[in-house]
Amino acid sequence: MWLMNDSGALLTDYYEPAMAQVYLRRELTAEATFEVTIRRLPENWGFFVMAGLEELGEFLRQWRFSDQDIAYLRSLGSFDEGFLRHLAGLEADVRVRAMPEGTVFFAGEPVVEVAGPVITAQLLESAVLNILGYSILAATMAARCRLAAGGRAVADFGLRWCQGPISSIRAARGAQIAGVSLTSNVLAAKLLGMTPTGTMAHSFVEIHEDEERAFWDFAEVHGRQAVLLVDTYDSMEGIEKAVRVARRMRDIHGVRIKGIRLDSGDLAELSRLARRRFDEEGVAFMKIFASGDLDEYRIADLVTAGAPIDGFGVGTRLAVCAAAPAAEIVYKISTYDGRPLAKHSPGKATLPGRKSVFRAGRDVFGGDMVVPLQRGDGDLLRAFDSPESMEIIKGRLDKQLSRLPRAVQAVRGPDGYPVAFRGFGGSGG
Amino acid sequence: MWLMNDSGALLTDYYEPAMAQVYLRRELTAEATFEVTIRRLPENWGFFVMAGLEELGEFLRQWRFSDQDIAYLRSLGSFDEGFLRHLAGLEADVRVRAMPEGTVFFAGEPVVEVAGPVITAQLLESAVLNILGYSILAATMAARCRLAAGGRAVADFGLRWCQGPISSIRAARGAQIAGVSLTSNVLAAKLLGMTPTGTMAHSFVEIHEDEERAFWDFAEVHGRQAVLLVDTYDSMEGIEKAVRVARRMRDIHGVRIKGIRLDSGDLAELSRLARRRFDEEGVAFMKIFASGDLDEYRIADLVTAGAPIDGFGVGTRLAVCAAAPAAEIVYKISTYDGRPLAKHSPGKATLPGRKSVFRAGRDVFGGDMVVPLQRGDGDLLRAFDSPESMEIIKGRLDKQLSRLPRAVQAVRGPDGYPVAFRGFGGSGG
Repeated sequence: MWLMNDSGALLTDYYEPAMAQVYLRRELTAEATFEVTIRRLPENWGFFVMAGLEELGEFLRQWRFSDQDIAYLRSLGSFDEGFLRHLAGLEADVRVRAMPEGTVFFAGEPVVEVAGPVITAQLLESAVLNILGYSILAATMAARCRLAAGGRAVADFGLRWCQGPISSIRAARGAQIAGVSLTSNVLAAKLLGMTPTGTMAHSFVEIHEDEERAFWDFAEVHGRQAVLLVDTYDSMEGIEKAVRVARRMRDIHGVRIKGIRLDSGDLAELSRLARRRFDEEGVAFMKIFASGDLDEYRIADLVTAGAPIDGFGVGTRLAVCAAAPAAEIVYKISTYDGRPLAKHSPGKATLPGRKSVFRAGRDVFGGDMVVPLQRGDGDLLRAFDSPESMEIIKGRLDKQLSRLPRAVQAVRGPDGYPVAFRGFGGSGG
Repeated sequence: MWLMNDSGALLTDYYEPAMAQVYLRRELTAEATFEVTIRRLPENWGFFVMAGLEELGEFLRQWRFSDQDIAYLRSLGSFDEGFLRHLAGLEADVRVRAMPEGTVFFAGEPVVEVAGPVITAQLLESAVLNILGYSILAATMAARCRLAAGGRAVADFGLRWCQGPISSIRAARGAQIAGVSLTSNVLAAKLLGMTPTGTMAHSFVEIHEDEERAFWDFAEVHGRQAVLLVDTYDSMEGIEKAVRVARRMRDIHGVRIKGIRLDSGDLAELSRLARRRFDEEGVAFMKIFASGDLDEYRIADLVTAGAPIDGFGVGTRLAVCAAAPAAEIVYKISTYDGRPLAKHSPGKATLPGRKSVFRAGRDVFGGDMVVPLQRGDGDLLRAFDSPESMEIIKGRLDKQLSRLPRAVQAVRGPDGYPVAFRGFGGSGG
């Protein structure tokens, strides 16, 4: 299923091999560097979180045109045999400099640099963007949800709304980088070592003719893990039934079930009612989870309103990142054969040459500076060789968020973070 | 790469096996039917286009829990051996009724029905939604772009902005259903038999120190296929250089190159200028293609303004469907053991029982009627056994669009299309 083991080399835009053939014919085969940048922060976003490097590394290691790939390209009638032979011999012999995963970064900053023979580096463009763009968005969206949740649990419920199976894994891993350890996606949990989580669907309640009986059946089988979905018919009645089931489970089996999930209605009001009833009825151990079109804004509002919700399941809006369904991510050439390059298209101008990014401030980040490449310490762009452990990546993000000004982290109307471009001549600013 | 050949059975939300274990323990193992519905049309959308069935069929054929999948589920400590044994023996023994691909449909209508043992049908939920949701959005978005383009070519440029590799194939196939035959995605072109298309990137122009030299190199290698990107430095100058290269190619090699691509600036004005210059300079054969954040609205505006553009490349907004990055798609139980079921959650109520959908009107569709299941002809939901050819699917959509009122197809502010729900008691309306 979804067997894409033909190496991924054909996952490229047609213009890449079209250009590459000209490069080979004209002997334009020197080294080039390309850099990946996101042009703009989406509305209300103060920062991005770097993610996707591990997958990029795996992609580059396996990248190769198979015989079948070459045969397909030949069938198109636009590529000559010399070029096809060249492609057949290629490996992804590129060097990558990148901000490590979990790094906080900003619009306009180079986050990845791919350096290598121009043909190879050009052919990789589409896949690099495809891999990094959504990974970064998902990690950032999850970080925003966690910031909004202020220490309460956040779970990734996005699988069904993602565009595809691989993207659901990217979304889960992005969430994991942002400190989300729970996902509803069983495959993602398996591949990434996350904790699979879930409650029950409305269908479960409907199949049982009686809602309380449904709760009881689920509680008896799942015990301490049982979370009861209370809104199939009427959330207020559902809460009362959950109270009775929780009491009976405790009295008969000596088991404290986990809690309830609210999925519709006024979540703040319902959570207060549920909390009060659980406390009144001696089942104060019951936790309250909420889901249903949640995003960082609704989570922030619920937290601000003091809603006694212990955890949030975020589905659609984590999966599709409604504020920014696609990153304005670009892969732009910065040098060819050592010569700095830039383009000047209206609204799309780039700064020439290879770059370094330095960050000021010890306890609190004070601003970034993008400058022409400098050898030495402190450059946020480092040689990327092998993947890091998730602990290191998560730790990096935690540490960076502890130093990023709080106002830049605001979920609504964040302060801008200063990024200066110096040393690029008149076009810097 | 992206090797997901562990059958896809773990691509499920954790609550599905959690519920399934209760069903097995409580001997709730009768037949159930679930139906797939999209709750709402996104703003400015008048209809949806059905897509994704072929992939769903393939998924169902291969669906199985591998030994490795079972071992993972066992490791979670929440599933008993009897249940794991049951899972290990399961196949996707379900029957699917569906509106065939290329069918136009509307909010609230059942478009797919999955019938089978409740455990299996429940376990399939997440994957069914993941497969169908984005396929439908991509097909509909492409259909809207084609309607806006009014007969001019539309190409799928979405690969780099899709959430993942599989989703890029889904997007291309959705576009293909909507009559788009061109894609920049080489892998999608290979897998789907589409025509790969592309021009050149800005980097190609930058690597050549001289823009006109870059055009010449590209034109000599690609001849009649050559499309020159004119906006790396200044589109007006780029157009003049393209004129000279087109004349020289014709004069020296006797070859008419294909044209230019505009990617920024005022596309209407630049296309008029280019058209005039090409006609004045005796290279009237040159075609004009446009790209750069295009969507159905900008295409419609350009067409209305009479911009002489021959084809549109749609990237980001086809890839992420900005108006509706996720469909409000749901998988709801309609019967269990022959008993009609419904839920009543606020804003999420469903109508009970299995359903048929009938469409009125011979030359022009007059409205749909959703009624309790009726045996007989005319039901838009038909048994889905084997995939259809792309020709049949595309033909179906063409034919349906020729009968759907034009005002319902409007890209902005479409008329509503009447859908009535009859025979469901008081809750119909």
